[in-house]
Amino acid sequence: MSFRVDLNCDMGESFGAYTIGHDAEVVRHITSANIACGFHASDPIVMKETVRLCKDHNVAIGAHPGYPDLAGFGRREMNLADDDIIQNVLYQIGALSAFTAFFKVPLRHVKLHGALYNHVMKHENLFLGIIRTVKEAFGDLLIFTLGTPETKIMKKRLAGEGHRLILEAFPDRNYADDGFLLPRKYPEAVIKESELIAERAISMVKDGTLKTVNGHILDIEIDTLCVHGDNPESIKAASMIRHYAIRENIAVKAPGI
Amino acid sequence: MSFRVDLNCDMGESFGAYTIGHDAEVVRHITSANIACGFHASDPIVMKETVRLCKDHNVAIGAHPGYPDLAGFGRREMNLADDDIIQNVLYQIGALSAFTAFFKVPLRHVKLHGALYNHVMKHENLFLGIIRTVKEAFGDLLIFTLGTPETKIMKKRLAGEGHRLILEAFPDRNYADDGFLLPRKYPEAVIKESELIAERAISMVKDGTLKTVNGHILDIEIDTLCVHGDNPESIKAASMIRHYAIRENIAVKAPGI
Amino acid sequence: MSFRVDLNCDMGESFGAYTIGHDAEVVRHITSANIACGFHASDPIVMKETVRLCKDHNVAIGAHPGYPDLAGFGRREMNLADDDIIQNVLYQIGALSAFTAFFKVPLRHVKLHGALYNHVMKHENLFLGIIRTVKEAFGDLLIFTLGTPETKIMKKRLAGEGHRLILEAFPDRNYADDGFLLPRKYPEAVIKESELIAERAISMVKDGTLKTVNGHILDIEIDTLCVHGDNPESIKAASMIRHYAIRENIAVKAPGI
Amino acid sequence: MSFRVDLNCDMGESFGAYTIGHDAEVVRHITSANIACGFHASDPIVMKETVRLCKDHNVAIGAHPGYPDLAGFGRREMNLADDDIIQNVLYQIGALSAFTAFFKVPLRHVKLHGALYNHVMKHENLFLGIIRTVKEAFGDLLIFTLGTPETKIMKKRLAGEGHRLILEAFPDRNYADDGFLLPRKYPEAVIKESELIAERAISMVKDGTLKTVNGHILDIEIDTLCVHGDNPESIKAASMIRHYAIRENIAVKAPGI
Repeated sequence: MSFRVDLNCDMGESFGAYTIGHDAEVVRHITSANIACGFHASDPIVMKETVRLCKDHNVAIGAHPGYPDLAGFGRREMNLADDDIIQNVLYQIGALSAFTAFFKVPLRHVKLHGALYNHVMKHENLFLGIIRTVKEAFGDLLIFTLGTPETKIMKKRLAGEGHRLILEAFPDRNYADDGFLLPRKYPEAVIKESELIAERAISMVKDGTLKTVNGHILDIEIDTLCVHGDNPESIKAASMIRHYAIRENIAVKAPGI
Repeated sequence: MSFRVDLNCDMGESFGAYTIGHDAEVVRHITSANIACGFHASDPIVMKETVRLCKDHNVAIGAHPGYPDLAGFGRREMNLADDDIIQNVLYQIGALSAFTAFFKVPLRHVKLHGALYNHVMKHENLFLGIIRTVKEAFGDLLIFTLGTPETKIMKKRLAGEGHRLILEAFPDRNYADDGFLLPRKYPEAVIKESELIAERAISMVKDGTLKTVNGHILDIEIDTLCVHGDNPESIKAASMIRHYAIRENIAVKAPGI
Repeated sequence: MSFRVDLNCDMGESFGAYTIGHDAEVVRHITSANIACGFHASDPIVMKETVRLCKDHNVAIGAHPGYPDLAGFGRREMNLADDDIIQNVLYQIGALSAFTAFFKVPLRHVKLHGALYNHVMKHENLFLGIIRTVKEAFGDLLIFTLGTPETKIMKKRLAGEGHRLILEAFPDRNYADDGFLLPRKYPEAVIKESELIAERAISMVKDGTLKTVNGHILDIEIDTLCVHGDNPESIKAASMIRHYAIRENIAVKAPGI
Repeated sequence: MSFRVDLNCDMGESFGAYTIGHDAEVVRHITSANIACGFHASDPIVMKETVRLCKDHNVAIGAHPGYPDLAGFGRREMNLADDDIIQNVLYQIGALSAFTAFFKVPLRHVKLHGALYNHVMKHENLFLGIIRTVKEAFGDLLIFTLGTPETKIMKKRLAGEGHRLILEAFPDRNYADDGFLLPRKYPEAVIKESELIAERAISMVKDGTLKTVNGHILDIEIDTLCVHGDNPESIKAASMIRHYAIRENIAVKAPGI
């Protein structure tokens, strides 16, 4: 039996004089990049340079829209009307598409950022509204979302309507029993040992299960693994995942390619 | 001999709780709309609704990118590096293109806004950089720019490279002898009588000349007339221009259609 | 028995090229102005001019801090940490105080704006944190807050600690049974007849009771009445309240003066 | 003969999730801090924490207002009207004063930032307008400005009107013959050897002269030396300046204390 998985990372989060992340290093390890679109992070120059960087390294490019909240880096819930959220997402994808068009590379996926990523998990109608509006405007973009027992079912259902969900896991994070990430305020929320992260990543992909922080086993499906690019330890884990994947005969490549 | 001219207006300049302009009224008189893209004015909801309004009235849609300066409405010169300006323009056009894509209407032109519109008139290399970058990313968009003796020549030259300049005049503004608009600080800068505005408009189109505030005659060519949508008097002038145009056998329609 | 009440209005909500409100008209009817501080509305020029306007009309000046959300006019809940909210409030009051200092007029009160005004009603610890921090930085500013049976009690309690709450009512709004304003999505939320608004205002002040939309009677105390300055009807109501107040022997003046 | 000099550094330039500078380290070496006020950098939380840090280290606190241009870090010239600049400066000083008031520490000086710092050197009327407006609103704040032969004369003249200019030098920068800093685009603009920086600093203070990049000698007067906190080398230079100052019997302390 053969497996495949994508390695994705949030990129292009610098802004003006401010730098975040180690994009030039992390781009060498991943297969998909989620590029910030100027609302929670980034600016036009950073977006252009990040698209160029991804093109140079043959990394699949996706838009990473967030709440319009630079001061909060898109991590704070904002009570926007659903239509407002949808148009904010369209706007940001469109903005990024200018740079992929300029560099003649495809825009392949959309991954919502931060508080917005979490918000749609609890508001299915809004999530479906986003998915349908994005399809209407941009055609068949892949939609990245958290892999849970529920989204595993949703993925099948939406496939029937022509939408392609890509289910994501966070090997460096502990999960609560409901399949959501344990919030960062808990000391055990983040796993820091790169070897342990890599082992979790491999078993998620091969077994299709996830052990929560309380030891429960969740039935999931994983298409893509999120790597965090803001510290050297995570980048090391990404490198190890790629080594383990070779050993385990798991193909590491962008989804849909 | 037959003539044609476009009537364009800046639209979609409202923002959040703030309203500017009489878009629902002015859209009935024009043939091209320059839609603000969120940097000097507008927001994603306003952009979506403005694209819908233009589609409903069969008005050609263009992007109207400006400096990233909401507080100054894009009217203040900002010392951005050329590459920064170019990427800011790309970003904004891309953002608007999300909404034209959603509504399945073409994005037809680009008109720079305010201080940026004036800035490129004095920095030809930057202007050419914008034109070429826009073409690379978005293909054959029309580029609106001020009609002067110099841009009349530039239009011909650029046509040879596949770029299409659309030359614009402001019938409600007085001109200095260099072909630029008299700055608003001068009392005679703005012409307020709608009948006079309409007459100037017609003669600009038919004669291909422009009388400056000092009485000099400039040799120009006019493809589009700018109508200001922020006061009822200008809207009245737009209506009169259309009446006069019928009488004078001037076709009023969007360029390139 | 004699009564007194303050008439307050949100002012200085214009921003750059955008105008909201009829400040020059409404300032003639009120005794306290809540001046926006640049986060949900306003800018430094507008703040300066609004302070000058209030000084010229002998209207008491207060700061009107809101969420940092110009696009949402501060009406959208944002999930900021308590300390972040407190420092955002301090910042805005300080900013306004530069202009009251310049014009040598006292800064007299603080009224939180929009979603933040509502938020603190449900988070008493945060509200107390704001009150104490404001006192630490600015001394004895009056704190405007919604008049409910609960805040009537809180007012007495906080007076013992040296804090002065000023209880506010909205005569042009219907109330739910819990003492909060009926949300605007309900058709009966806003009362539009200026005469009815004025009568409600007078009875709130004299009787110390409030009839909810369901006919329940709430025991309140009212120090200030909020007038909305964004439409002529409300301004008319303000004028009528002042006439009725004379008839009813109610002194209309800013609190603490 | 005895000398004294101040060591100042721009601080509090982080913003939200973005970090700039090594404030906790640099604060140990300086005697005055110029704290960003939220327009070109910083946010309310950063401002509060920076004021606290300065208080803890007994460092004199000044406001560091800049253009409203976070994306450009206040380094890009913006064509604001003079009155707009003045009110933007007032606003920012007021905002910072909320935090110094909260922590019961004096606000001692104002140093304009980046492009605005340079702009006022070429627009004396605006500079005087700022100085007088600041005095009207905040009383006797010290005003930091570039030490040149011209400002040496201006300092004396303004002292007669009760204004106190503090003249600043940049020991890690090379100067053009007009007394202005050599722009950063020139390779020799920045001096990187910490020992050389420290020696230049000492001779500027003791000799009251400055050798330009072309070898001309300018007659200056130096009250404060600017240290850059964004790289370890500059911090090292600050430490060396303090050592040399002891040897040379130069008192290092904040001005006016």
